[in-house]
Amino acid sequence: MAATLLSALLVEILIPVAALIGMVFALIQWFLVSRVSVGGGQASINNGYDQSLLDDEEGYDDAEAVALCAEIQNAISEGAESFLITEYQYLGIFMAVFSVFIFLFLGSVGGFSTKWVSCKANPSELCAPPLANALFSTVAFILGALTSTLSGYLGMKIATYANARTTLEARKGVGEAFIVAFRAGSVMGFLLAANGLIVLFIAIVLFKLYYGNDWTGLYESIAGYGLGGSSVALFGRVGGGIYTKAADVGADLVGKVERNIPEDDPRNPAVIADNVGDNVGDIAGMGADLFGSFAESSCAALVVSSISSFGADRDFVAMSFPLLISSAGIVVCLITTIFATDLFVIKSVKEIEPSLKRQLVISTVLMTLAIAAVCYLALPSTFTINVVGHQPKVVKNWKLFFCVGSGLWAGLIIGYTTEYFTSNAYQPVRDVADSCRTGAATNVIFGLALGYKSVIIPVLAIAVAIFLSFSLAAMYGIAVAALGMLSTLATGLAIDAYGPISDNAGGIAEMAGMPHKVRERTDALDAAGNTTAAIGKGFAIGSAALVSLALFGAFVSRAGIAVVDVIQPKEFVGLIVGAMLPYWFSAMTMKSVGKAALAMVEEVRRQFNTIPGLMEGTVKPDYKRCVKISTDASLREMIPPGALVMLTPLIVGTLFGSSTLAGLLAGALVSGVQVVLGIMQKSISRQVHRIMLAALVQRVLMHIRLL
Amino acid sequence: MAATLLSALLVEILIPVAALIGMVFALIQWFLVSRVSVGGGQASINNGYDQSLLDDEEGYDDAEAVALCAEIQNAISEGAESFLITEYQYLGIFMAVFSVFIFLFLGSVGGFSTKWVSCKANPSELCAPPLANALFSTVAFILGALTSTLSGYLGMKIATYANARTTLEARKGVGEAFIVAFRAGSVMGFLLAANGLIVLFIAIVLFKLYYGNDWTGLYESIAGYGLGGSSVALFGRVGGGIYTKAADVGADLVGKVERNIPEDDPRNPAVIADNVGDNVGDIAGMGADLFGSFAESSCAALVVSSISSFGADRDFVAMSFPLLISSAGIVVCLITTIFATDLFVIKSVKEIEPSLKRQLVISTVLMTLAIAAVCYLALPSTFTINVVGHQPKVVKNWKLFFCVGSGLWAGLIIGYTTEYFTSNAYQPVRDVADSCRTGAATNVIFGLALGYKSVIIPVLAIAVAIFLSFSLAAMYGIAVAALGMLSTLATGLAIDAYGPISDNAGGIAEMAGMPHKVRERTDALDAAGNTTAAIGKGFAIGSAALVSLALFGAFVSRAGIAVVDVIQPKEFVGLIVGAMLPYWFSAMTMKSVGKAALAMVEEVRRQFNTIPGLMEGTVKPDYKRCVKISTDASLREMIPPGALVMLTPLIVGTLFGSSTLAGLLAGALVSGVQVVLGIMQKSISRQVHRIMLAALVQRVLMHIRLL
Repeated sequence: MAATLLSALLVEILIPVAALIGMVFALIQWFLVSRVSVGGGQASINNGYDQSLLDDEEGYDDAEAVALCAEIQNAISEGAESFLITEYQYLGIFMAVFSVFIFLFLGSVGGFSTKWVSCKANPSELCAPPLANALFSTVAFILGALTSTLSGYLGMKIATYANARTTLEARKGVGEAFIVAFRAGSVMGFLLAANGLIVLFIAIVLFKLYYGNDWTGLYESIAGYGLGGSSVALFGRVGGGIYTKAADVGADLVGKVERNIPEDDPRNPAVIADNVGDNVGDIAGMGADLFGSFAESSCAALVVSSISSFGADRDFVAMSFPLLISSAGIVVCLITTIFATDLFVIKSVKEIEPSLKRQLVISTVLMTLAIAAVCYLALPSTFTINVVGHQPKVVKNWKLFFCVGSGLWAGLIIGYTTEYFTSNAYQPVRDVADSCRTGAATNVIFGLALGYKSVIIPVLAIAVAIFLSFSLAAMYGIAVAALGMLSTLATGLAIDAYGPISDNAGGIAEMAGMPHKVRERTDALDAAGNTTAAIGKGFAIGSAALVSLALFGAFVSRAGIAVVDVIQPKEFVGLIVGAMLPYWFSAMTMKSVGKAALAMVEEVRRQFNTIPGLMEGTVKPDYKRCVKISTDASLREMIPPGALVMLTPLIVGTLFGSSTLAGLLAGALVSGVQVVLGIMQKSISRQVHRIMLAALVQRVLMHIRLL
Repeated sequence: MAATLLSALLVEILIPVAALIGMVFALIQWFLVSRVSVGGGQASINNGYDQSLLDDEEGYDDAEAVALCAEIQNAISEGAESFLITEYQYLGIFMAVFSVFIFLFLGSVGGFSTKWVSCKANPSELCAPPLANALFSTVAFILGALTSTLSGYLGMKIATYANARTTLEARKGVGEAFIVAFRAGSVMGFLLAANGLIVLFIAIVLFKLYYGNDWTGLYESIAGYGLGGSSVALFGRVGGGIYTKAADVGADLVGKVERNIPEDDPRNPAVIADNVGDNVGDIAGMGADLFGSFAESSCAALVVSSISSFGADRDFVAMSFPLLISSAGIVVCLITTIFATDLFVIKSVKEIEPSLKRQLVISTVLMTLAIAAVCYLALPSTFTINVVGHQPKVVKNWKLFFCVGSGLWAGLIIGYTTEYFTSNAYQPVRDVADSCRTGAATNVIFGLALGYKSVIIPVLAIAVAIFLSFSLAAMYGIAVAALGMLSTLATGLAIDAYGPISDNAGGIAEMAGMPHKVRERTDALDAAGNTTAAIGKGFAIGSAALVSLALFGAFVSRAGIAVVDVIQPKEFVGLIVGAMLPYWFSAMTMKSVGKAALAMVEEVRRQFNTIPGLMEGTVKPDYKRCVKISTDASLREMIPPGALVMLTPLIVGTLFGSSTLAGLLAGALVSGVQVVLGIMQKSISRQVHRIMLAALVQRVLMHIRLL
C-alpha cells in the first residue's frame, strides 16, 4: 500500500472546514446584499445615490418607485415560492414512492436478509446485509433529493431577494448594481457547493460507523445520493423550464408583438409570471441541475475507487480525493469572487463581460494549481483502477492531475465558446441579427445554423477531455474529469445566477417606472446576463456529458458488460433508438411549452380585450391567473418527459437485455449532447432579439406609415 | 455447393430483359405525356376540354394562356438545364480529380504491379493484379457517376416537359392533370431503376471477362459504381438543395410577406428561380440521391457475398440475388403504376392522396410475393455469410426473405408515418396550423416539436428492420434490407417526382393567368405533392440509413475490425464527434441557404423598388438575375459541406486510426438519421402554411382595418 502525504485525520478536518468557509462566505455575501434597503423612500436616500439622476424624467417620484420595487419584488417572490412549494409537493410524493421502490427493489435482491455475508470480492471479509444496503441507499437517496431541493429553494430565495436591490443600486451606477447581482449569485453558488459537499461528507462518516470495513457496500449505498440529486434535477429542470418558456413566449407574443408595449411593461398580465419563470427555471432549475451533476460525478468516482485499490487498501485519504477536489474548489472560488467584487471595480457597461470572463480564467488557473496540490498530497504515487473484463489499470498520481485538469479546461473552453457564440459583442450574433433585415425566415435559418455550429468546439473539447481521462484512468478518470469541470461550481453558478437576477432587475425597473438611465443600466446588465446564463448552461451540459459517461461506465461495470460492440444487432439497435430519445424528449417538452404558451397567449389577449383601462395603465391586470397557468401547465407537463427518461432504461433493460440497454444509453448520451448544446441557440436568439428590437420598432412604424 | 433452381443463363437473360421492360415502359409513359400539346391554342382545343370552363373569368384568352404556358415552361426548362450543366461541369472536374486519386491510391497499394498474384483467402488460386483492380474500380466509379448524372438530368428533362402539360390538362379535370404528372414521375422512376440496373449488370458481365475466376477482385472493383453514384448524389443534393431553398425563401419572403402578392405571381422576380429549384433540387437531386442508395446497397451486398459462400462456390445465380430483387422490383412497379394510371381513375381532389398511398401498398404487397419467389428460385437452401472476427454465419434462404421484406415493409411504415405527419388531412399538421393563431413563436415551437416527434416511428421501424436482418444474415442482411426498401424505387420515385411537377404546374397556372378553377385543381395536386415529396424523402432517408450501416459493415470487414467497443476511449470519442458531424454539416448548408436567400431577397427587393411598373404588372421582372444568384450560390456553397463529408473520414482515419474512425462512422450514422428525419418538418411547415394562408390573409386585412 502506497502512502499518501495527507493523513486521514487532516482530511476529516479539511473537508468540513472548506464547506464551512463556503457557507460563511455565502452568508457574508448575503449580508452585503441585504444592506441595500428596499424599505421605502427614506432608506433609499440614505443609500446616497446621485439625486440629480432623478431629475431627467418629469413626474418621477423616487419614493413611490422604491415602494413599487418592493411591491413587485414581493409579487415575484410569492409567485416563485408558491410554484416551488407546489412543485416540491409533487416531487415529495414522487420521491416517497420512488424511495419505497428503491428500498423494496434493493432489499428483495438479497431476500431482505439481515445477516452479514462474506464479500464476493474477498470471501475472507464480511459485507453488510442486503437489508442494510437497501436502507442506507434509500436514506442517501432522500438526502440527495432534499439537498437538491434545498439548494434550488435557497437560490430562488436569494435571487428574488436581490432582484429589486439590483434595480435600486442601478440608480447609483452600473458597477454597484453589478456587484449586488453578482454577490447574490455567489450566495447561491457557495451555498450549493458547500451544502452538497458537507451533506455527502457527513453521510459517508455516519454510514461508515455502521459499515466499518465494508467499503464497497458503504460507497454503493452512498451512490443513492447522486440518484436523489439527479431525480430532483430532472423534474426541477423540466418543470421550471416549461414554466419560464411558457410565460416568456406568452408575455412577449401578445405584449411586444401584438400590443407593441415594451418588455416587462406592468400592463402585460404575464409580466409577473415571466419574472417568476426566470427564478424557478433559470435559478432553482439550474441549481438542481448542477447539484445533480456534482453529486453524480462524486458518487461515480467513489463507487469506482471503492472497488479499486483505494478501497481494497482502505486508503481513506485517497478515497476522499473527489471530495478534496471539491473542497479545494470552494476555496479557489472564494478567492476568485473577491477579484470580481472587491479587487476590480466595474465602472462602465463594457467592463461587465470581460469581468465575468476574467472570473472563469482566474478560477481555472488557480484551480489547476489546487488540483496539482491535491493530487500530490492526497494520492499514493501509484494505484490501480479496476476495469471489468480487462486487466486492472495501473495509474500514477500525476495522471489524475491531467484527468481532473482536462475536465476543468474543457469547461473553460466551453465557457469561452459559448460566450463567443452568444454575446452580441462578436460576429456570429451580429450576422444573425443582420439576417433579420430580410425577415423571420432567413433569421430562423441563420439562427439554427449558428446554433448547430456552436456545438462543434464544445463537442471537440469534451471529446479531448474524455479521451485523455479515459486513456489515463478509465472510468475513474472520466468521473474526476467531470468533477474537475464542476470544481469551480461556485463561481460558475454565481456567473450563471447573475443572469436571471439582472433580468428580473430590468423587469422591476421597467415596471416601477424607473428613470431612463436606470433602465439603460439594468438592460446592459441583462444583456451580459443572457450570455452568462448560456455559459452556465454550457457548463451544465458539458459536465452532464462527462457524468453520464461516468455513470454509463458504472452501469457497464455493474452489469458485468466487458464490451459494448456496436457492430452487433442488439447494441446497434440500442444505439440508433437511444439517439432518437433526446428528440422524443425534446418533442414532448417543446409541445408542452407550446401548449402552455398557447394558453398563456389566450389569457393575456383575453385580459387586454376584456379589462377596460388596462392598455391605458389605469387598471392593473390579473397577474395571478397567468402565474397559475404557467404553474399548472408545468406541473402537469413535467410528468410524461420525466417518465420517458426514467422508464425507458427500465423497460428496455427488462425486455431486451443489458446489451441493448448499453447501446441505448450510449446512443442517448452522444445524441443528447448535441441536442442540448444546440439549444444554446435560444441564448443566441435572445441576443439577436435585443439588437433587433430597435430596428424592428422602426420597421413596424414604417409599415404603418406606408399603410 | 447447394443448387439454385434458376440457371445462370436464365439470370443473364432475366436481368437485362427486366431493365429493358422498364425502359420501354418509361418511354411509353413519356409518349403518353407528350400527347398533351403545348403548341398553341388550336392543339389545346383539339384536346377537348370543356369550353364552358373558360367563361368564368372575364377577359381570359385561352390561346394566349396556352402560349404563355409554353413560354414559361421554356424559361423553367432553360434555367434548370443551364444550372445542371454548370453543376455537372464542376462535378466533372471533381470526378476527374477524384478518379485519378482513386486510381493512384488503389494502384499504389500494390505498387502498380501488373502480375497476377495468389489470392489471400485461397492461395491456390490466382487473383487479378493491383493495377487492374485500380483501373476497373476507377472505371466503375466513373460509370456510377455518369449513370447518376444521366438519371438526374433525364428526370429534370421529363419534369420540365410535363409541368406545363399538367397545367393544361388541369383545364379538363383534376384526374387528367394527376395522370400527366404521375406518368411523368414514373418516366423518371423507371428510367432510373432500369438504367441503374442495366449499367451495373453490363459492367459485371464485361469485368468478368477479364477477372475470370477472381470474383473477390471483380466485385470489389464493381463497388466503385456505388461510390461514383453517391459522390454525385452528395453534390447534387447539396447543390440542388441550396438552390431550391434560396429561391423559395427569397421568392416567398418578399413576394408573399412584404408585397402581399400570391405565390408564383409572375410579377415576382424570383418566381422562375423558385420553379427551377423544384426541378434541380427535388427532381434531379432526389434522383441522384436514391440512385446513390440503390447503387451503394447493391454493391455492399455484392462485396459481402463475394467473400462468402456465394463467391467461394462461384454461384453466379446466388451472387446475382441483389440484381434479381431489383429486376423483380421493376416488374412489380410496372403493374403498380397501371393501377394508378389506368385501373382507378381519379375524379376528385380527395382521391389523390389515397390513390398515391394505394400505390405504396400495392407495390409493397406485390413485391413481398416477388421477394419470396426470388428467394426460392435464386438462392441455395443453405449458405454461409462471412463475419470478420467471428464464425461464418449459416443462413437459410427463407431468412433472406425476412431480411429483404423487413426493409420493404419498414419503407411502407416510413411512408405512412410521413404521410400522417405531413398531410393536412390529419391532426398533427392541423394542430400546428392551429398554433398559428397565437403567432410565429408558438408556431415554430409546435412545428419543431412535431418534426422531432415524427422521427420516433420511422426510427423504430428502421431499428426493427436492422435488428431482424442483422440477426438473420449479418451485414449481408442489412444490405439486402436496404435493397428491399429500394426495390419499389420506380414507384417511390414516381410518387416523389409527382410533387415538384405539380408544384411547377401550379406555378405555371398562376403565371399564365389560368382561370380560377384550373388553379384550384393544380393547388390540390400540389398539396398532395408536398406530402408525397415528404414520403419520397422518408424513403431516401430510411434506405440511406440501412445503406450506411451496410457500408459501415463493409468498412469494418475490410479494416479487419472485429469489435467496435464504445466503452473504449478511441471508439467513444469517435462516437461523440461523429454524432456532431451531421450538425456541423447542417450548420454549413443552412448558413449557405441563409446567405443565398439573403442575396435573393435583396435582389427581389431591388427589382420591386427600382423597376417602375413591376408591381402593376406592366413590366416584366428580370428573372435571369435571380436564377443566376441561386446558381452561383449553390455551386459556390456546395463545396465546403461536400469536403467535410469526404475529408473527415480520411483525416480521422489517418490521424487517429481505424477504431476511432469506426466510432465516428457509427456516431455520424445514428445521429444523422435523426437530424435528417427531423428535416421532414420542412414538409410539415409547408402544409401548415397552406392551411394558414387563407386565415393569414384574413388577419392582415383585419389588421389593416384596425389601423
